[in-house]
Amino acid sequence: MKKEKKYAYESKVIKTELLLPNDTNTLNTLIGGQLMHWMDIIGGISAQKHSNSVVVTAAVDHISFHNPISLGQVITLEAQVTRAFNTSMEVFIRVWAEDLIEGTKLESNTAFFTFVAFDKNKKPLEVPEVIPKTKEEIKFYKGALVRRQARLQLAKKNR
Amino acid sequence: MKKEKKYAYESKVIKTELLLPNDTNTLNTLIGGQLMHWMDIIGGISAQKHSNSVVVTAAVDHISFHNPISLGQVITLEAQVTRAFNTSMEVFIRVWAEDLIEGTKLESNTAFFTFVAFDKNKKPLEVPEVIPKTKEEIKFYKGALVRRQARLQLAKKNR
Amino acid sequence: MKKEKKYAYESKVIKTELLLPNDTNTLNTLIGGQLMHWMDIIGGISAQKHSNSVVVTAAVDHISFHNPISLGQVITLEAQVTRAFNTSMEVFIRVWAEDLIEGTKLESNTAFFTFVAFDKNKKPLEVPEVIPKTKEEIKFYKGALVRRQARLQLAKKNR
Amino acid sequence: MKKEKKYAYESKVIKTELLLPNDTNTLNTLIGGQLMHWMDIIGGISAQKHSNSVVVTAAVDHISFHNPISLGQVITLEAQVTRAFNTSMEVFIRVWAEDLIEGTKLESNTAFFTFVAFDKNKKPLEVPEVIPKTKEEIKFYKGALVRRQARLQLAKKNR
Amino acid sequence: MKKEKKYAYESKVIKTELLLPNDTNTLNTLIGGQLMHWMDIIGGISAQKHSNSVVVTAAVDHISFHNPISLGQVITLEAQVTRAFNTSMEVFIRVWAEDLIEGTKLESNTAFFTFVAFDKNKKPLEVPEVIPKTKEEIKFYKGALVRRQARLQLAKKNR
Amino acid sequence: MKKEKKYAYESKVIKTELLLPNDTNTLNTLIGGQLMHWMDIIGGISAQKHSNSVVVTAAVDHISFHNPISLGQVITLEAQVTRAFNTSMEVFIRVWAEDLIEGTKLESNTAFFTFVAFDKNKKPLEVPEVIPKTKEEIKFYKGALVRRQARLQLAKKNR
Repeated sequence: MKKEKKYAYESKVIKTELLLPNDTNTLNTLIGGQLMHWMDIIGGISAQKHSNSVVVTAAVDHISFHNPISLGQVITLEAQVTRAFNTSMEVFIRVWAEDLIEGTKLESNTAFFTFVAFDKNKKPLEVPEVIPKTKEEIKFYKGALVRRQARLQLAKKNR
Repeated sequence: MKKEKKYAYESKVIKTELLLPNDTNTLNTLIGGQLMHWMDIIGGISAQKHSNSVVVTAAVDHISFHNPISLGQVITLEAQVTRAFNTSMEVFIRVWAEDLIEGTKLESNTAFFTFVAFDKNKKPLEVPEVIPKTKEEIKFYKGALVRRQARLQLAKKNR
Repeated sequence: MKKEKKYAYESKVIKTELLLPNDTNTLNTLIGGQLMHWMDIIGGISAQKHSNSVVVTAAVDHISFHNPISLGQVITLEAQVTRAFNTSMEVFIRVWAEDLIEGTKLESNTAFFTFVAFDKNKKPLEVPEVIPKTKEEIKFYKGALVRRQARLQLAKKNR
Repeated sequence: MKKEKKYAYESKVIKTELLLPNDTNTLNTLIGGQLMHWMDIIGGISAQKHSNSVVVTAAVDHISFHNPISLGQVITLEAQVTRAFNTSMEVFIRVWAEDLIEGTKLESNTAFFTFVAFDKNKKPLEVPEVIPKTKEEIKFYKGALVRRQARLQLAKKNR
Repeated sequence: MKKEKKYAYESKVIKTELLLPNDTNTLNTLIGGQLMHWMDIIGGISAQKHSNSVVVTAAVDHISFHNPISLGQVITLEAQVTRAFNTSMEVFIRVWAEDLIEGTKLESNTAFFTFVAFDKNKKPLEVPEVIPKTKEEIKFYKGALVRRQARLQLAKKNR
Repeated sequence: MKKEKKYAYESKVIKTELLLPNDTNTLNTLIGGQLMHWMDIIGGISAQKHSNSVVVTAAVDHISFHNPISLGQVITLEAQVTRAFNTSMEVFIRVWAEDLIEGTKLESNTAFFTFVAFDKNKKPLEVPEVIPKTKEEIKFYKGALVRRQARLQLAKKNR
């Protein structure tokens, strides 16, 4: 039914957050779990935008945390659907940390989240296919197949 | 010291939020105060980006609320500095509400916030001038002078 | 139907808040948006009290922020309906900041919020007229007419 | 040093809260722990006001919960110091629940909290004596002695 | 109907919390009201576990606070039903504070909460009897009768 | 310096949470990001307990979400360090969802988080080795080596 196609960039969503005291640990740096919470929200909005449906988080791929982000810094999260598989969508999320006083900005994390679309009766819903256009979108689109295989294997193994 | 110039678009910031239960009243629509809280955060980040300094909210101009925004909808806030006056900056904030299930999007609010920049000794700090480029940026830049007059008069009257 | 009259003071509401870490910015002073959030809540309760109905924020007039309020200080907000216009009410909100350790208290902000009353079918509802009694209540009652004109003009211009 | 006297009413503090979704359980009624959190905040502000010092909760007396309070209702908490004992203060807290749509209001809870005052070196600090004036204030002032005995016994027994 | 018996230990629940900035006052120590909020949540879960029903807080017995708990420390709350009386349950809650850096742990508080069970029509529901097994469980089971008497008297007196 | 050994079970931590409205999406089921936030907190506490130091999240391995968890259900998270590698620790986290009204409980998620220990000068700190005892602890201890290889490769590839 819902089977038209949509461009990858149509699902792009940006979220900016100011680190507040409760987002930080005793080193005054961002708690990893808070960042994952924001990633999940923005990733879910991106998947909703692509599928025009309610979505639920199905999987999160490996995430590494390299640089501590300090109280008062600004976090920018950018999410975009890379590819759809029937009722699920892979979303790529990129996070930057900025120290606006110093004027510095660095990529702090990237992640792949997978979401499943649901209709009003809480049944999985087929979503539009993704049309990648830029070089990077095409790279992510192609890679999605391999990542999906790895993910299915991991899910099976974890059970 | 800090007296270089910067383009208006360099201060552009976008924030996307998913309405959660605690953001809503008993009609299941967004509480106005929660929206103003987000406006203030995004406006402040925009002013920080322009001034590379800590900023404090100095004033909020008249805001009208026209359309109720419902639980589960998505809010997008976009902020950009319109003009600087010595140590203060006017920021224009535009808010959209989207129903991603219906695929509808409408402009729900606009607002002008004013922020003052501070240095590390908590003294007001001169900020860069703004260079407007697009037609809209130029319109906002010009209008800022009149709005500032009105604001100063209102502040005097309220005292 | 609901067309009796009520005294202005019957809608008086007081809210006291202790500034907690998450209410503050990196200067350890109150975030303006948090204050507006509290203003909106207390203003809405006052309008509910006058109208015995659910209310929605319709407009906020210009607000100036003069004095920073620090972590650990106490905020007192006082709200009272000044005048009703068919289905809408203007609420006057006054905010004090107290340093209880020093024993000092100062008026930090004032604001006019406008709320609209709704019935259970989400239709605007006529609200009781306001009877002002004290000198100050009469001043606010009279001034409400001029402020309403200004507000309607601003709303029209912003569209 | 700090040994002047103060009237009981000088420590009166009022806090009004609108019940939001996250304050409620699956019956859509106020979570008892949220109410105690608000009681503790308002009681602490009252004790701070009396002592002009930082205070810490020392004890809470028995609290009964009689009537469920529903989502969308308004809670008013009123706190006032009843009596001081060297470095500690007993605070009486009264809570009302209002259904502003129905126009009903009922006393939902009362409680006695005890707070201890601290100076800047985190040492207990002597606080002013309380002067009760109204009949009710005198009743609470007198009763405070008996309640204190009971409290000390309970604290000993619990150890 | 629901009248089987259950062992006391079947209702045991553990909750661990990391103190975050917003849980603390200006002395950087845990706000008493936040601790009571957590006690109420964990006590309610324990009572739900025993009764397999929705529960509501009916009473809190006297609580003393002896040792300040600092930012960054870890709180462990342990709750277990001690005895059931028709539709109500007494829950014993024990709280430890740990400084994981120093490797120290101390019992900071204990409390008795009473909860009432409700069925889907919001009517009080009979709950299973409690079977105590350990020496401590038997001590708490026996003591519950005396505490209940005291509680009923206090509730009567407070009215 | 800190180079003694500790048993795996010494780092066991349990956290129980009641799902509140703000933890859920428009399907009234738990938001995945909120669950990851709790996992990160409990995992960090477990790593702190093992290392007696401040810790920072370094990596999260693949997580699958199989069953939606509904508003009002109870989440139990259990975390334990599986193995240490110089300054880092792998923590295994297991999550159960319980419907206490129905009396059902099911394992909803498992995850491996990696944390790095820091001393007071924010330098990585060597942590004690882990001694596994139970069959399951030994299985996790052995598997940790392979998972660590995979993690290092993924981190390299993602850069």
